[in-house]
Formats: sequence, structure tokens, C-alpha cells
Amino acid sequence: MITSTANQRVKQIVQWQTKAKTRRQDGIFLAEGLKMYEEAPVGLIREVYLTEPLLQRLICRREQGDIYIEEKLKKTGYELVSEEVFTRISDTRSPQGILTVMDQQTYEPEQLLEGEKPLLVLLEDLQDPGNLGTILRTGEGAGITGVIMSRNTVDIYNPKTIRSTMGSIYRVPFLYVESMEETIRLLQKKGIRVYAAHLQGQAYYSSLSFTGGTAFLIGNEGNGLRRETADLADSYLKIPMEGRVESLNAAIAASLLVYEAHRQRHM
Amino acid sequence: MITSTANQRVKQIVQWQTKAKTRRQDGIFLAEGLKMYEEAPVGLIREVYLTEPLLQRLICRREQGDIYIEEKLKKTGYELVSEEVFTRISDTRSPQGILTVMDQQTYEPEQLLEGEKPLLVLLEDLQDPGNLGTILRTGEGAGITGVIMSRNTVDIYNPKTIRSTMGSIYRVPFLYVESMEETIRLLQKKGIRVYAAHLQGQAYYSSLSFTGGTAFLIGNEGNGLRRETADLADSYLKIPMEGRVESLNAAIAASLLVYEAHRQRHM
Repeated sequence: MITSTANQRVKQIVQWQTKAKTRRQDGIFLAEGLKMYEEAPVGLIREVYLTEPLLQRLICRREQGDIYIEEKLKKTGYELVSEEVFTRISDTRSPQGILTVMDQQTYEPEQLLEGEKPLLVLLEDLQDPGNLGTILRTGEGAGITGVIMSRNTVDIYNPKTIRSTMGSIYRVPFLYVESMEETIRLLQKKGIRVYAAHLQGQAYYSSLSFTGGTAFLIGNEGNGLRRETADLADSYLKIPMEGRVESLNAAIAASLLVYEAHRQRHM
Repeated sequence: MITSTANQRVKQIVQWQTKAKTRRQDGIFLAEGLKMYEEAPVGLIREVYLTEPLLQRLICRREQGDIYIEEKLKKTGYELVSEEVFTRISDTRSPQGILTVMDQQTYEPEQLLEGEKPLLVLLEDLQDPGNLGTILRTGEGAGITGVIMSRNTVDIYNPKTIRSTMGSIYRVPFLYVESMEETIRLLQKKGIRVYAAHLQGQAYYSSLSFTGGTAFLIGNEGNGLRRETADLADSYLKIPMEGRVESLNAAIAASLLVYEAHRQRHM
């Protein structure tokens, strides 16, 4: 059991929690909590850190007939850490007592374009980690085929993003791209219509058809889309807003769009 | 100018930032940031705290022809505080330099039921202040007539809630109720259909009609709706979910529902 917060591995994990650059260099990310461990693909798991109280709870579960986690722990192995150490390596206020160190996943562009009518979300410079995670989660629910992000979008492996995906990080393909312009042109060549969510949009989103290949372009929380990017879209669209509302939260806007596409595709 | 963090008014504001009970006793809430000040109804403003750098920026704005804020500051008055003091009274990491102390608003039930086809959101024990604020903001956008909350729902005057409403707190009528059961029965008597968002729902939300008086019942983030509450609804409804998604964030679910109602009402 690791009981000292001065332990080298503890220091390493704290670095991974706080520094995107270190995560990138080492090709890893951290997934905290039991649900995130349960859903994690075994092949991507490098290390598992567990507290004794949680281990006891899991043993109790096994006695109640739930052997899934025990089998998984046998496969992946784990290292016990003291509660003091866990508090140090955890990113949450009320830690559950399990943290998984995982390999970053990489996808090929083709994986995001599978099927006859891809449904993509393109994010330009989104900054809030919770928004990004929520978009992955809701996106999976709506059946999107992937998320494409500009290079200046928040790190998808930010611990807050990972947490708010509620496991969708394992299942929704994603890519960071150097040039959003090139990406849009490439999608258009493949017959995918690109819609820019824009306050100056003329057409309401629910009046457009998203039953063919579709990509929704969502901009930064404060500034929206860069003009050069928005101009490349096939159409602007807007979400109607009553009262004195000037804009919606980026994750809310993205969710309304992908679920409208889902509705149209399942009528 | 207030320059000491030991000042009694500074201590009072810190109490209001952190304690729902003190806010309730004094009947006030705090709204931070320039947008929140700009949109605040003058009649509700009690005190305004401002830093010198922000005042200079506002003077510069006036020189550029924007006199709105200056006129408003003349009406409401303001007190300058040092940046050190502002950091103490602020709830944000990068304070803008303006904080408004306001009277809490109270609404009568009738105000939430105006018009021929009210559109309401009923929240049972929602706990996340950001979710609540986002529901007010998106709700205003979708044209809801009000939000009704169970007594154990997070305080709507929580500074994080206020911030995430982006001003909708001033415009969307809301009520806390002792008994959600009685409220549901009352709404039903008035011809409003109550839909419970529920994982066991049979009907997909977009297959139902929300063109008449409609109320959407949303439960707690972790536990969903209490059974007794859900059972009183006219129908359960569910949001379709692809992949392995088990549920959506509460603010996302509420947003999809109110915007589906908006879509149907504006076809």
C-alpha cells in the first residue's frame, strides 16, 4: 500500500491531474470514480489506484453476487493507497476511492465518418471542460459519429471533461485538427453538410433537414465562431430565443442540434 | 472608498455570498458582473460596489458614446472599493469589478400560469446550482412561463446559479413550493398536462404534443424523481439514448423538452 504523499508515483499522478502537457507527453489520462472504471476498456488501463474502504465495499458486492468488478480487478490489477494519498491524487471533493490511469485513445479520421450519414460536432476553441464533456455525453445519446475540435479547444483529457462525459469518452470518436478550414472542406467533399450555429443565422434549426450527412459547427463560449470559419459553412442556422436571451450555453446549443438531428432521423 | 477587508459591509457581503440562510433572512441576493448589473431592474437594486479600474473603463465607454451605464449608475448610486476588497467580496476567479446587492423577488402562483398555454418546468430536489441557472436561461429562451421548485432544490439565489442564468433570473417567474404533490394536482385542475421525465418512460418526448398547457417534471441529478411524485404525472416520457448512455445531465434534459415544446408551438 502506498501511504506516503511523497511517493514518486503519487507525484506523477498529481502532475497528470494538473498538466495537459505532461498527459500528452506520456500519452495517458486519468479516469476517476467507479463508473469510469467499470466502463473503461481493459486494453487501455495502465494502472488502478484503490482505497481500502472501497475495496471492502467491492468485496461486499461480490458476496451479494456481483462479480463483474472483481473479475475486472483481477485482470487489470490494482494498487492500494491510503485515504490521505487518495485525497492528494484525486481531483474531486468527495472522492469515491478509485482512480484509473489509462492510455490516450487515437482515432483515424475515417472512424468519424463511418456509415451513410455521419453526424458530427465541430468545436472551435471551446474552453469549458464541463461543456466539452457534456457534449460528448449528450452526443453519444443522440448517436453522433464523432467530435472534431480545433487545436485551441480545451484538452479533452482534462479531469473535469472526463468526469462530465460519464463514460462517453471511451466510446465517442474524436480528433483535434490543425486547420478547421481544411476539415470543413474535406467534410464537404465527402457530401457532409456543415451548419454553423450563429446568432446571425436566418434559418431556425428545426426548419432544416439533418437526415443526410451533417456537421454542426459550434464556437467559443464568449466569442462564438471565427468569421473565416463560419463563412465556410454551407448554411448558418440559429436557435430561436424568446425573452431577452442573447445566446445559449454552448453545450445546450450543441445538444439541441444533435437531438433535432436524432428526431428527424427517427421519425 | 472602502479599502479594508475588515469593514462591516465587506463582512456582510461575504456572509451573503456564502450563506443561503443569511440571504433569505435579509431578503437579498448578489449579482456579479457588468451584464448582470446592466440588466438588473433598478427598483430591485439596493447597493452597488465598483472598483476604480472598472469605473475608468465605464468612463471611457461614455466617451465613446455609450451613456447607458453612466445613467444607470447615477440612478442607483455606487460605492467604490479597492481591488483587494473586491477580491474578498467576489465569488469569481476573475472578477469584473462590479457587484450588485439586490432585493429577492417574489412571485404569485398566478404569474406563472399566465396566458392560454403555460409552459412550466417543475424541479424536484435539483442540487447543482449551475444546472438550475442554465435551466432558467434556456427556459427563458424557449418561452417558459415559470419554474416551480421543491423546497429541497438548491437555492436559486446561490451566486453560481445567478451567474449561469446570464440575467434570466430577473425575468423568469419562479416559486418554491412545500408540496410538489399538491402543486401537480393544482396544475392538473387548471388543465395543464404534467409530464415526468423518467428513464422508465414509454413514449419518446418528440412523439407527444406540448401545444396545450404543459409542465415538465425533472428530478434530482443522482436519483431522479421520487416515485410518489412521478406517479402523479399524466404521462411519463423519455428521451431516446443511443450507445451506452444511461441518462442525460438534468439541464440538458430540461432544455431538450422545453425546446421541443417551443418547436411544436411555432410550427
